[in-house]
Amino acid sequence: MQLTQCIKRAAQVDRHGIATIFAERQHTWPDFVARVSRLAGALRSLGVAQGDRVAMLALNSDRYLEYYFAIPWAGAVVVPMNIRWSPAENAYSLNDSGARVMIIDDAFVAMVPKILAEATVDTLIYAGDGEPPQGMLSYEALIADNAPAADAERVGEDLAGIFYTGGTTGFPKGVMLPHRGLWSSGVAIAHHLELSAGARYLHAAPMFHLADGAMSMACCVVGAGHVMISAFSPQAVLEATSAHRPTHLLLVPTMVKMVIDDPGLAAADLSSVQRVLYGASPMPEGVLLEAFEKLPNCGWLQAYGQTELSPVATVMPPEYHVLEGPLAGKLRSAGRAAVCCEVEIVDEAGNVLPRGEVGEVSVRGPNTMLGYWNKPEETAATLIDGWVRTGDGAYMDEDGFIFIMDRFKDMIISGGENIFSAEVESALSKHPAVSECAVVGIPSEKWGEAVHAIVVPAEGTEATEADLIAHCRELIAHYKCPRSVEFRSDPLPLSGAGKVLKRELRAPFWEGRERDVN
Amino acid sequence: MQLTQCIKRAAQVDRHGIATIFAERQHTWPDFVARVSRLAGALRSLGVAQGDRVAMLALNSDRYLEYYFAIPWAGAVVVPMNIRWSPAENAYSLNDSGARVMIIDDAFVAMVPKILAEATVDTLIYAGDGEPPQGMLSYEALIADNAPAADAERVGEDLAGIFYTGGTTGFPKGVMLPHRGLWSSGVAIAHHLELSAGARYLHAAPMFHLADGAMSMACCVVGAGHVMISAFSPQAVLEATSAHRPTHLLLVPTMVKMVIDDPGLAAADLSSVQRVLYGASPMPEGVLLEAFEKLPNCGWLQAYGQTELSPVATVMPPEYHVLEGPLAGKLRSAGRAAVCCEVEIVDEAGNVLPRGEVGEVSVRGPNTMLGYWNKPEETAATLIDGWVRTGDGAYMDEDGFIFIMDRFKDMIISGGENIFSAEVESALSKHPAVSECAVVGIPSEKWGEAVHAIVVPAEGTEATEADLIAHCRELIAHYKCPRSVEFRSDPLPLSGAGKVLKRELRAPFWEGRERDVN
Repeated sequence: MQLTQCIKRAAQVDRHGIATIFAERQHTWPDFVARVSRLAGALRSLGVAQGDRVAMLALNSDRYLEYYFAIPWAGAVVVPMNIRWSPAENAYSLNDSGARVMIIDDAFVAMVPKILAEATVDTLIYAGDGEPPQGMLSYEALIADNAPAADAERVGEDLAGIFYTGGTTGFPKGVMLPHRGLWSSGVAIAHHLELSAGARYLHAAPMFHLADGAMSMACCVVGAGHVMISAFSPQAVLEATSAHRPTHLLLVPTMVKMVIDDPGLAAADLSSVQRVLYGASPMPEGVLLEAFEKLPNCGWLQAYGQTELSPVATVMPPEYHVLEGPLAGKLRSAGRAAVCCEVEIVDEAGNVLPRGEVGEVSVRGPNTMLGYWNKPEETAATLIDGWVRTGDGAYMDEDGFIFIMDRFKDMIISGGENIFSAEVESALSKHPAVSECAVVGIPSEKWGEAVHAIVVPAEGTEATEADLIAHCRELIAHYKCPRSVEFRSDPLPLSGAGKVLKRELRAPFWEGRERDVN
Repeated sequence: MQLTQCIKRAAQVDRHGIATIFAERQHTWPDFVARVSRLAGALRSLGVAQGDRVAMLALNSDRYLEYYFAIPWAGAVVVPMNIRWSPAENAYSLNDSGARVMIIDDAFVAMVPKILAEATVDTLIYAGDGEPPQGMLSYEALIADNAPAADAERVGEDLAGIFYTGGTTGFPKGVMLPHRGLWSSGVAIAHHLELSAGARYLHAAPMFHLADGAMSMACCVVGAGHVMISAFSPQAVLEATSAHRPTHLLLVPTMVKMVIDDPGLAAADLSSVQRVLYGASPMPEGVLLEAFEKLPNCGWLQAYGQTELSPVATVMPPEYHVLEGPLAGKLRSAGRAAVCCEVEIVDEAGNVLPRGEVGEVSVRGPNTMLGYWNKPEETAATLIDGWVRTGDGAYMDEDGFIFIMDRFKDMIISGGENIFSAEVESALSKHPAVSECAVVGIPSEKWGEAVHAIVVPAEGTEATEADLIAHCRELIAHYKCPRSVEFRSDPLPLSGAGKVLKRELRAPFWEGRERDVN
């Protein structure tokens, strides 16, 4: 369970194989390993020692993948920084992790002075394509000028990375993942996605985020190739897919929606795509049905998990993505336990609940985190007897499929009833006038909380609040339907991982008040 | 990396799935887990404590698979006993491991008094189908009468099993394998064999041996089903395959030969078989070519490894089992590093040798053993800086394929030249008059050792010593060709794993003399 082992193996068994393709550059596996070992040599010569944290703030590129392996090769710990965060939030993650070396690309050079106003960094490495700005070392020069380091060969329980999460709670936590976590998650994902050495993966989601990061590991474990686009856009996905013929994609639900709505879809060549993994947030059923229709020839999989699980917990395989036949009826499920772990639905005391009862998703396996960096209390509350308590409400059916109801903190308690925002959103999303939507609990004198929907209407449509409420009443119980609908023309605020930031949507309604969980 | 996790997962995600089929019995995954947990409960009530060793001496059955999981469920350690061993050798493995509980089936009941004459066992459990003999507990009654135990949840570095190996060296060693070893080996094998939940594996090789044992783990990790035949015979393989339609087989080379030579082959239905894994000893090229011809529709894979590696090190995938085209030329290779490990060819000091040079195969990964039970010196000589030195001579080509030359101890040193017996056997096996053959070094005044061949002729053929030597001279260098050929009508002596016992063949020639390695 050593991350560096897999890239050495890939270079040994596939010396002509293409490891990375980005813009006009491509590297074979032996090139890739040579660059990784030289970058590790550079870091060692800069004083990076065993266990030191090295941060990276950058858009996607082949260099991001080199970073993921050069840091452990040097014996250090990755701290991938959130590309959506403000300078203050980025400074927080540097200060909290104690990273004194930061790698930065062209997109974030301008932010550096603002970050440095609040954080101390000793060494800045410029991984852009121009001349390095003053005070920054050149990434390419470091690789060219340094001899390869010997692999530090960290393994098993050794800390591999600190991944910041929980921007949505207001208190970012650094999730400590060991080598065994990322390796076992990688090998499990490779199994479920049927990834093999001949596969090629398109990095369309941000590489700092572990949804994509775990795909990086899965591909490297089996020696599959990588294509990167610097940032997601539906056009970039369609162009890179047509040009480089990836076999596997990972898209968060909002990205799926944008790709299938893109006018370029019809002309693009997506025939190479065998599997699309979606996840990181629940996919509204309406979007999923549309996606099946528009991309009928690829297998769809959902993965559910969280950073604390490296990040995979359950997988919903392609054969259950059907509306008819003996396997139908699972479409709203997040799938079943991945091969690397055990999944249970438990009550607050940790007792396993009967099938069908809603409780907390609890997961154990080699993929669990070591804990939260410098947060023993939060660790103790989340990692209990080796199980990660996810904070997600769900039930498990007789066949072992879990159905995620909601993050517990997004659950709306109205008139004593628990209402899961995801269920209401799923109903809303089926109305043709709804392009995006989010449902939150807002204060109500009468009910405690009331169900409030925020809707971005589809272009050229007109639907009233009453229309949408009536539509929901046809699909779900009255008490779950929105009591109010608010229309917005701007897209909903998203986290770096593409999740709707409900805390942000809720905040104005709760100003000056206390919500139990926020 | 907990072995019991995977069967709990299988029961959760596939409650109607068939776990085991043996004779007239079959069990679903939930049944299987219930039986395992009850057997574990029985063992706990019999006083089996954390880390205790529990031995099993039995032919293949569904109960053998239950044993592999009930023992770790109870917190104990499996000691699968070699079905080919004499009572004295079996007593040795009991005494050496300290196992005080032994599970025994009908085939070995008669041997018990002889074993007990030399070993102390407190509890005998009868896993046969009749009434338990006096002094033995009934396996089925233990399951019926005991409540399920809580899973001991041993994991990672915890000892899972002691597997005796090295009968061929005269000094059996107990290889200590941890949970991480068996789990990572299982997940790697599942990847290379493309095993998934829908697959079904036929246990034709003996289940005590780790070649089959690792397949047990691989199948359970992904939730694939198991069919057992009590012992290998070509007829039993053909019948079970026709009746139960397994997708995957594992056969050692001698078994492959017997299956393809069987007169029942033409009438059998082998259409379900997608993959045949062969290994445990090198496959003579002649047999391989005949096997391709007779079973053209299944993919052949070779796995190379040893018990010390849980046991997989390299895999030779189906697409390289070809005589023509761009992938040809690798047929004599044992393949490339499996996804779970690193493989190098090293000199005696452990330095990696250039490609093409013959040295020792050295392997590192989560699949390595903890060491030899109670044998710190042998452990120190084999497990060096985390690498297992295999004792096998091989070279690696530019593409990362390894070509096994010989066990170092089977290598013949004649006139100062190293001659690899496997190469000579491969040449001999291509002669139509050769059914089985083995090549060993025998004492020679002139050359130190001389190349001696022992041949079992094919039925209805007649070939002389001179014919076979002449045949070899057309294929390999003169100095490698046998100087003498001996014909035998009896089959060659085999180990329990189906390996030819060369030490036994050599012994009469070396009586009263010393061979450097024996």
